[in-house]
Amino acid sequence: MSKIELTVEEIKQYDREFNLHSWSKQKGLNPIAVSKSEGIYFWDYEGKKYFDMSSQLVNMNIGHGNKKVIEAIKEQAEKLAFIAPSFAVESRSKLARKIINIAPDNMQKVFFTNGGADANENAIKIARMFTGRNKIFSRYRSYHGSSFGAGNLTGEPRRYPLEPGIPGFVKFFDPYIYRAGINFKSEEEASKYYVNMLREQILYEGPFNVAAIVLETVTGSNGVIIPPKGYLKGIREICNEFGIMMICDEVMTGWGRTGKWFAVENWDVKPDIITFAKGVTCGYVPIGGVIVSKEIAEFFDDRVLLCGLTYSGHPLACAAGCATIDVYEEEGLIENAQKMGGILGELLEGLKAKHTSVGDVRYIGLFSSIELVKDKESRETLVPYGKDPEGIMGKIIGLLKERGFSTYSHENIIIVAPPLIINKEELIEAMDIMDEVLDIVDKTML
Amino acid sequence: MSKIELTVEEIKQYDREFNLHSWSKQKGLNPIAVSKSEGIYFWDYEGKKYFDMSSQLVNMNIGHGNKKVIEAIKEQAEKLAFIAPSFAVESRSKLARKIINIAPDNMQKVFFTNGGADANENAIKIARMFTGRNKIFSRYRSYHGSSFGAGNLTGEPRRYPLEPGIPGFVKFFDPYIYRAGINFKSEEEASKYYVNMLREQILYEGPFNVAAIVLETVTGSNGVIIPPKGYLKGIREICNEFGIMMICDEVMTGWGRTGKWFAVENWDVKPDIITFAKGVTCGYVPIGGVIVSKEIAEFFDDRVLLCGLTYSGHPLACAAGCATIDVYEEEGLIENAQKMGGILGELLEGLKAKHTSVGDVRYIGLFSSIELVKDKESRETLVPYGKDPEGIMGKIIGLLKERGFSTYSHENIIIVAPPLIINKEELIEAMDIMDEVLDIVDKTML
Ligand SMILES: Cc1ncc(COP(=O)(O)O)c(C=O)c1O
Ligand SMILES: Cc1ncc(COP(=O)(O)O)c(C=O)c1O
Repeated sequence: MSKIELTVEEIKQYDREFNLHSWSKQKGLNPIAVSKSEGIYFWDYEGKKYFDMSSQLVNMNIGHGNKKVIEAIKEQAEKLAFIAPSFAVESRSKLARKIINIAPDNMQKVFFTNGGADANENAIKIARMFTGRNKIFSRYRSYHGSSFGAGNLTGEPRRYPLEPGIPGFVKFFDPYIYRAGINFKSEEEASKYYVNMLREQILYEGPFNVAAIVLETVTGSNGVIIPPKGYLKGIREICNEFGIMMICDEVMTGWGRTGKWFAVENWDVKPDIITFAKGVTCGYVPIGGVIVSKEIAEFFDDRVLLCGLTYSGHPLACAAGCATIDVYEEEGLIENAQKMGGILGELLEGLKAKHTSVGDVRYIGLFSSIELVKDKESRETLVPYGKDPEGIMGKIIGLLKERGFSTYSHENIIIVAPPLIINKEELIEAMDIMDEVLDIVDKTML
Repeated sequence: MSKIELTVEEIKQYDREFNLHSWSKQKGLNPIAVSKSEGIYFWDYEGKKYFDMSSQLVNMNIGHGNKKVIEAIKEQAEKLAFIAPSFAVESRSKLARKIINIAPDNMQKVFFTNGGADANENAIKIARMFTGRNKIFSRYRSYHGSSFGAGNLTGEPRRYPLEPGIPGFVKFFDPYIYRAGINFKSEEEASKYYVNMLREQILYEGPFNVAAIVLETVTGSNGVIIPPKGYLKGIREICNEFGIMMICDEVMTGWGRTGKWFAVENWDVKPDIITFAKGVTCGYVPIGGVIVSKEIAEFFDDRVLLCGLTYSGHPLACAAGCATIDVYEEEGLIENAQKMGGILGELLEGLKAKHTSVGDVRYIGLFSSIELVKDKESRETLVPYGKDPEGIMGKIIGLLKERGFSTYSHENIIIVAPPLIINKEELIEAMDIMDEVLDIVDKTML
């Protein structure tokens, strides 16, 4: 870095003048300038401290400023920051091996990408090459990234700018039980209903044209929609029946977020392909990737893998990934996510019982959401689908932020997903802020 | 990194066992394991030294192991490795400003991505939003990345696995004069021919349906095809006439490669959008981006920019980018690319005059190619388009590698694009190896 540091005014001014922000109108943005971060907290230049209750974009699983990962980055930067994907390099070999050791036991190889979107791009390319088929199924309530392939997988409005879409992308319904309009007697019954509906849709589309079914193991941005018992097994069976690749997008759910290394383990299911990003380095250095089964890996022994990108298997990112995995293991973070997840669940149930604005809470590990409604009975959403003309959700997020609770919302849903290093006291302290803000919502916003 | 380092055998074994390599059959790969790199060289574990004559994938413009960039990475890792794109952060503000200062003077803002492919993905999304139109023109001899959007822009065979393609992507011919089959009297005449042909094609496609014309300013991977004088101006005029966005993909040509910060400056043309990656950090940390004009930037003041990715404007990558730009400036690398480019041009002309296998050489700055033919008169390519059944080009690259000259080929073309820090003696020493290998080609491969 050059010697003269910027003032906070300059940081904000240059940001406004020269930088385009995602998913926003640029006028009127007034982003917090972040001066430092550590553990589950970050600070602005006025010294105000924030609980990072979304782990940034659900990626900072090990928290901010982890010394071990920083050390690994520094070491690898000195050693070999970059070498092209065609070479063999220590940190890449090491990370690929670590990932396969952690992944479900049918998995064999990793193709590294830069992030989550291109992990999904490459996963569907691989599924198409492997099956020789074209169609790709994915769900309405889903976000898989914003590039053309990942954006066409995406079911929510963020795909609209990519339309007219790529031929062969078909959408199906999520097992969004809270809004199903059906009174299922059990999770198993709900699973049966959704799996049967999907199987029927596949029959209509032509099962032998379908290359892949892509799903977020637990739907993330679109509201932490947790698959009911038997659902993923049912999908696996459809895939087996018709020779379809089951692709689990674990970009958000992977790396301990749900209390397991990968969320699929919660239901003991083995997909053919897993995509990942975020938690693998927690964003310290950008990387993502595609994990493929032994069968798929062997397919490419004698056939050209028509995938590639300049930074594939980036040595610096791989070194950060190796260190991050060590941190998960050494600090017992998968276990902590389970344990703290139990407490978070109780706190959320408390909020639901107390607040008229809380229609539903959903949680698994440290991955959770609060769904806001105008009315508990009718379940009418606090804001209509795809819009928020009065900016109500923005106001709620603002109220939280004012009180030092940083997170984000989607539709009528608030995401709560703190770093996996959080402890009980911190969790309670943060969720007290949520309680306070929900009081305001109850009283003034319904 | 964990304490126990891997042996070279383990590095190769884990690479083979767990890592998928780009654009290859996986069986039989025997990648060089790289132990270290510095300046224009890298080394394998046997201590063998290689001239990096392609700057890896034409990204290592400042060379390997640059101390200043390494220092910046280490500092930023300590300070703040990651914060989400919605915040303001020093290194991002700084890099955005630096880039706009360097870019053509009609440019106003940067949207940061992870690499080159997603830079192009976002550029066409932005062009579509800005114009409200759908069609995208790009060229046959082009590579823009391998994700769905960038891959549909791509004209060469690496787009095939992405077909059936996205509706509205139209291809046109490059000004590939050496193979035009026309004896143009001047560059200007050639430009007129190609520009008129494009204009006619746009009329057929409906000019007011066309959102953007996307071109590599100098076609890179597909053979360093340099636009004749007047060509880019002609494209600019078509864009002005019909309100089409001119998008220059400077992923490979940007950051001094052609002897200017951006290649467009060679022809004094101002596109509406420039995409970049590679040279901005030289790959030390992954990043890419889209630079947009003032007009486009202002358009998004009041309209939502429907683009986004987790690592957008990654603080660590931005810090590396700031330091890299300082290195270009402080070490006079843009000027050195010009000066050494002159020498490289002479050396290439010498090879063309001497070797019966060399049909054409093309060069601008330190960006160049050697086009191999069976026969200088007929210009028959050394290998047929889209295949190389006997692996002839692979053998040639292997002969170079054996002698310590590392680069890659595409079709019948060898890329020569060393780091911009190379000096005259090194250039001559390396090109002597090329001379020696071309002797073998002349004698045994035609
Ligand atoms: C489930 C899921 N898939 C894919 C992505 C896209 O990842 P990226 O932002 O790295 O492109 C995200 C990002 O939030 C995600 O949550
Ligand atoms: C001109 C051009 N555009 C785009 C790309 C894609 O960049 P990336 O490999 O970072 O996705 C490349 C890569 O070689 C390129 O040369």
